[in-house]
Amino acid sequence: MKIPVAVLGATGAVGQRFVQLLDGHPWFDLVALAASDRSVGRRYADACAWKLDTPMPEAARDLEVRPAEPGLPGVLAFSALDAAVAGPIEEAFAAAGYGVLSNARNHRLDGDVPLLVPEVNPDHTALIPVQRRKRGWRSGFIATNPNCSTATLVLALAPLERAFGLKAAVVTTLQAVSGAGYPGVPSMDILGNVVPFIAGEEEKIQSETRKILGTFSSDGVTPHPMGVSATATRVPVPDGHTVSAFVTLGRDASLAEVREALCAFRAEPQRQRLPSAPEHPVVVVDADDRPQPRLDLKLERGMASVVGRIRRCELMGYKFVVLGHNTIRGAAGASILNAELLHSQGMLPEATS
Amino acid sequence: MKIPVAVLGATGAVGQRFVQLLDGHPWFDLVALAASDRSVGRRYADACAWKLDTPMPEAARDLEVRPAEPGLPGVLAFSALDAAVAGPIEEAFAAAGYGVLSNARNHRLDGDVPLLVPEVNPDHTALIPVQRRKRGWRSGFIATNPNCSTATLVLALAPLERAFGLKAAVVTTLQAVSGAGYPGVPSMDILGNVVPFIAGEEEKIQSETRKILGTFSSDGVTPHPMGVSATATRVPVPDGHTVSAFVTLGRDASLAEVREALCAFRAEPQRQRLPSAPEHPVVVVDADDRPQPRLDLKLERGMASVVGRIRRCELMGYKFVVLGHNTIRGAAGASILNAELLHSQGMLPEATS
Amino acid sequence: MKIPVAVLGATGAVGQRFVQLLDGHPWFDLVALAASDRSVGRRYADACAWKLDTPMPEAARDLEVRPAEPGLPGVLAFSALDAAVAGPIEEAFAAAGYGVLSNARNHRLDGDVPLLVPEVNPDHTALIPVQRRKRGWRSGFIATNPNCSTATLVLALAPLERAFGLKAAVVTTLQAVSGAGYPGVPSMDILGNVVPFIAGEEEKIQSETRKILGTFSSDGVTPHPMGVSATATRVPVPDGHTVSAFVTLGRDASLAEVREALCAFRAEPQRQRLPSAPEHPVVVVDADDRPQPRLDLKLERGMASVVGRIRRCELMGYKFVVLGHNTIRGAAGASILNAELLHSQGMLPEATS
Amino acid sequence: MKIPVAVLGATGAVGQRFVQLLDGHPWFDLVALAASDRSVGRRYADACAWKLDTPMPEAARDLEVRPAEPGLPGVLAFSALDAAVAGPIEEAFAAAGYGVLSNARNHRLDGDVPLLVPEVNPDHTALIPVQRRKRGWRSGFIATNPNCSTATLVLALAPLERAFGLKAAVVTTLQAVSGAGYPGVPSMDILGNVVPFIAGEEEKIQSETRKILGTFSSDGVTPHPMGVSATATRVPVPDGHTVSAFVTLGRDASLAEVREALCAFRAEPQRQRLPSAPEHPVVVVDADDRPQPRLDLKLERGMASVVGRIRRCELMGYKFVVLGHNTIRGAAGASILNAELLHSQGMLPEATS
Repeated sequence: MKIPVAVLGATGAVGQRFVQLLDGHPWFDLVALAASDRSVGRRYADACAWKLDTPMPEAARDLEVRPAEPGLPGVLAFSALDAAVAGPIEEAFAAAGYGVLSNARNHRLDGDVPLLVPEVNPDHTALIPVQRRKRGWRSGFIATNPNCSTATLVLALAPLERAFGLKAAVVTTLQAVSGAGYPGVPSMDILGNVVPFIAGEEEKIQSETRKILGTFSSDGVTPHPMGVSATATRVPVPDGHTVSAFVTLGRDASLAEVREALCAFRAEPQRQRLPSAPEHPVVVVDADDRPQPRLDLKLERGMASVVGRIRRCELMGYKFVVLGHNTIRGAAGASILNAELLHSQGMLPEATS
Repeated sequence: MKIPVAVLGATGAVGQRFVQLLDGHPWFDLVALAASDRSVGRRYADACAWKLDTPMPEAARDLEVRPAEPGLPGVLAFSALDAAVAGPIEEAFAAAGYGVLSNARNHRLDGDVPLLVPEVNPDHTALIPVQRRKRGWRSGFIATNPNCSTATLVLALAPLERAFGLKAAVVTTLQAVSGAGYPGVPSMDILGNVVPFIAGEEEKIQSETRKILGTFSSDGVTPHPMGVSATATRVPVPDGHTVSAFVTLGRDASLAEVREALCAFRAEPQRQRLPSAPEHPVVVVDADDRPQPRLDLKLERGMASVVGRIRRCELMGYKFVVLGHNTIRGAAGASILNAELLHSQGMLPEATS
Repeated sequence: MKIPVAVLGATGAVGQRFVQLLDGHPWFDLVALAASDRSVGRRYADACAWKLDTPMPEAARDLEVRPAEPGLPGVLAFSALDAAVAGPIEEAFAAAGYGVLSNARNHRLDGDVPLLVPEVNPDHTALIPVQRRKRGWRSGFIATNPNCSTATLVLALAPLERAFGLKAAVVTTLQAVSGAGYPGVPSMDILGNVVPFIAGEEEKIQSETRKILGTFSSDGVTPHPMGVSATATRVPVPDGHTVSAFVTLGRDASLAEVREALCAFRAEPQRQRLPSAPEHPVVVVDADDRPQPRLDLKLERGMASVVGRIRRCELMGYKFVVLGHNTIRGAAGASILNAELLHSQGMLPEATS
Repeated sequence: MKIPVAVLGATGAVGQRFVQLLDGHPWFDLVALAASDRSVGRRYADACAWKLDTPMPEAARDLEVRPAEPGLPGVLAFSALDAAVAGPIEEAFAAAGYGVLSNARNHRLDGDVPLLVPEVNPDHTALIPVQRRKRGWRSGFIATNPNCSTATLVLALAPLERAFGLKAAVVTTLQAVSGAGYPGVPSMDILGNVVPFIAGEEEKIQSETRKILGTFSSDGVTPHPMGVSATATRVPVPDGHTVSAFVTLGRDASLAEVREALCAFRAEPQRQRLPSAPEHPVVVVDADDRPQPRLDLKLERGMASVVGRIRRCELMGYKFVVLGHNTIRGAAGASILNAELLHSQGMLPEATS
């Protein structure tokens, strides 16, 4: 018996990725799709301008799009809702007993909401009981995943933190257009161009990284004290965020040690063999000119951070380049892995109230 | 009477830019074009696959391409030669009495060769007498301009150094494909992609920046002690290098002071009204999402560094984004401005020996 | 005394091009800018996200954006209005005595509205008296220019029609993203992609070409009887529509005769030396691999059609490739040239009623 | 026991695609890789700059690259050789008893060499005995597949020929950069640009299409009498050739009949269930704006032609757009399917002499 799940915001770029990744999932069964009024009442195949390069899953084609309101079938709600509306809708679902796995930014920094990367802070799910208590929710909850560039970065930082400690990271991102959703970035703005600004992105990288790497104690998560400074840019790349990182570790380490810490990184999802977990959460590529979005994005089905160009930096200590798939590990795939983690911890609701 | 000049390596991407920028120059008269054996003896219009979006200047069309050997007409030789051959050819021209204005990397770090940015280190031309003495050259010389990303960066750093002092810069470059010349970057490598590596580029940024900002004394240039660490990437942009910079100044300054130091920057080329000098060597753009290659590259005819997004950085102190035209200020335009500076200083040869 | 003119829809992609091209115009003085409610009451510099690579003209920066309603200063109204609203607004302006030069599609095929290309059908301005009579307008009028791909094509067809007659044209267009305005084509749709459909475009090419090449008689324009069949595609090019054309002429001609007919083409705007007229309305480029948007778009300041690859076609007779600048000759520049033609014919209103 | 095969020209773009597609092939076992002198003697993993987005197959990594000379293990030789050298090398392999499946253009139009598309002209393999007789080869042979744009086009034309007859096709291609191999098209030439010329391509489309659709009789293939006229362009697309086609059929048919003829098309490879055969050789997509390279290229693992926008054309009769994967169905996949066809016909050599 699979767990019935719904996708909220199912017609957008991230919503489509949820539908794609949930197709054939061993634990979850996609039973409901919700979207905005414009789509409600239509077949998904008719309502959705599918923009992925694999065909729309057969099982989804005939589902009727419903309003994003509790009452939907499913005990989990994967949220790809726009941040303009996600906040109260996700709360309503959680209050009604759904486990909400959200990709929206709205609740990420709430003190009682876990911002999860299963390889990094699986213990932060302990915020869920806190959250239920505080908000008076019986079995529902909200758990979030980080924004796409943070997801890519933090997966590469975590093994370094674990092995050597982390003091600071100065990063410049080169982000793909799919990170802005659809229609997102106008082509006139980005063809042959770089736009050195993404609203809110730098702040998210800075605060989300610290929370994810932070420490859970009885009353919440204490952010990691490391410094993080980011400049975010948009580049004419369809998928895949590249991050140029300069980091200061807690202690000196050889480049071989740094490389080994990244390669050897395994964590809870790998030990539990969660269905969406990459075998290697961090893949190190050794060729001088890698990682590249066009060539390295499919590694581990888009669920890994791919690291290359590990070098000494005379100022910060170390520098390297990280690549991640922004709509898989950076969005829908991250939410699904979060759900798998919570299932393995026995924390999913059994039914909506 | 204009000064007769030649262009070496005239058929390549930078060579074409020299031919374009020298057309109608008030001081210099293009009288000779040299290129490799494949082109020698052919009309320039036949030998050169012109890749600029203005027509090939009429005056250049009928010039016969000659071998890159002394004996060419002209007292100045602008060198767009490939680094594989530039070293000894440039020396031969200088020995024969030509003033060589080189865009090649070969001699940039030679102790007796000035690496010039006229707004930044016009006094480094004092290396020319040293060079002549050391190498036994009568009237010829080699003067170089920095590589394209350094040129963009250093023009923005110089006013900060002057106003506040500089301690460190951590930079990530997003470089256009024209920086690699023609044929240069294969389209299969860069369409929709980022290549996080450009051979030798990071080392150049680090060492050239220090030399340009360094101090001339009787026996040479002492590099600036600041730290510089770079990661260089190639992005699918036709022209224009974007640099994401994080810098530590010598003293605290408000963002308004930083902005003002950049805006107010004027130097020797502006005071001398050199023909190719930009009115504003640094242009500050205030919109959140600027500078952008597609929109800001034509400012000051490609001879300025365009700075935007000036912010505090909790780690380095300050961060901003700089854009420059890599084949104008970053290559041919830089060499021409160097020649203009030297002319204004009375340092050009009068005739070849 | 220049003629005062207004631009309607001034903040969009074509509107900005009007503002750019009217800056410093010898006959016209830009005195008013109108746009939608969102912009009304703001300085143009604040209301408009300027997307051109030359700075916003100083004279326009401080103009207050007004509603697109008669009463605006100016006796001419250049319309870059969206087709969703252009129809009645343009009529209201014409009724109020303005000469409306429209880039919108709404009235192009009206029986009493000239669809002008000054080199091709300058006599079609004779529809204006018909139009005034029919609609009861005293001094105002509406004159239109063709859609962008038609503009490019028809300028190359006209000399062939004149010299040899025309029977048929089968064309495939490869259109730039700026043809769709701003925000227009989402980058997710077009990066590294071809979209083989542009709504309504093929029908426009077919019907507009026939009308422009048609014959004016006392009661209207009889469309040219030639057959036209088009497939329109969008390609990841910022500016410049490329048209692959296969044509059947009215009589046999050598390739040299075809080439000569195109090169030698001059018409009314050239004879009258209209300010925006290209010296050569059709430029023939002989290199095998031309015309190309990146290299040939600036010829004649974007006001020419650039033709290359003229060959025999075993099926249609002849084939060639045409390139045109879609927002200059294909939009704003075309409207301005229309106004210049009408001025030279003494047909502009002297003042609004 | 699988059939041992070699790949000639294994390090280039098409060669890599052979290595990728042969990995895990049910009938063929990749046992040898050959390339030019520069690579000979090195491990494939070291010699080859792998440019595909799946990892290099493990089995290929350690193969030593050999010279492209008979004596290689294998009874089949898949040739991805450059046309500059392919001619005599392929002949030498055939003379030595290898079955040569060639992607090179050199022998395609030889009177005794089959130019195969297994769904279209499987009977043309009867040229192989003719070829052996004529050339004195015992068991070896050369069989070729068409160039990439022809492959895409002809697969869509074949069902129309079968159902209605074909009189003429006027086509414009929009071809991906991977069609030019590696390094191939310089990025400076194609970023944001269209190049309306590909050397030799139009002639290939015209002559190859006629040969493939031609009729075999005892002494050779009589080309199909249809007219074909092509204009070939290069667009900034990584993979996937789009063809805008205007065709005249042998008899009138409704659009529904045309669509059905395309959809229902099945042939020998489908009946024989050849391993690389697509289930549907032609896939019809009905959305207005399809097919698109980014979205439709993976259909049938790149082995189908994808057709959309089927419409009447007032001049030619019908028009539509076809998309195909240029390095799969247009190159390596085509050669492999040819080998599978020949195996199913019992025509492969059993061993080299």
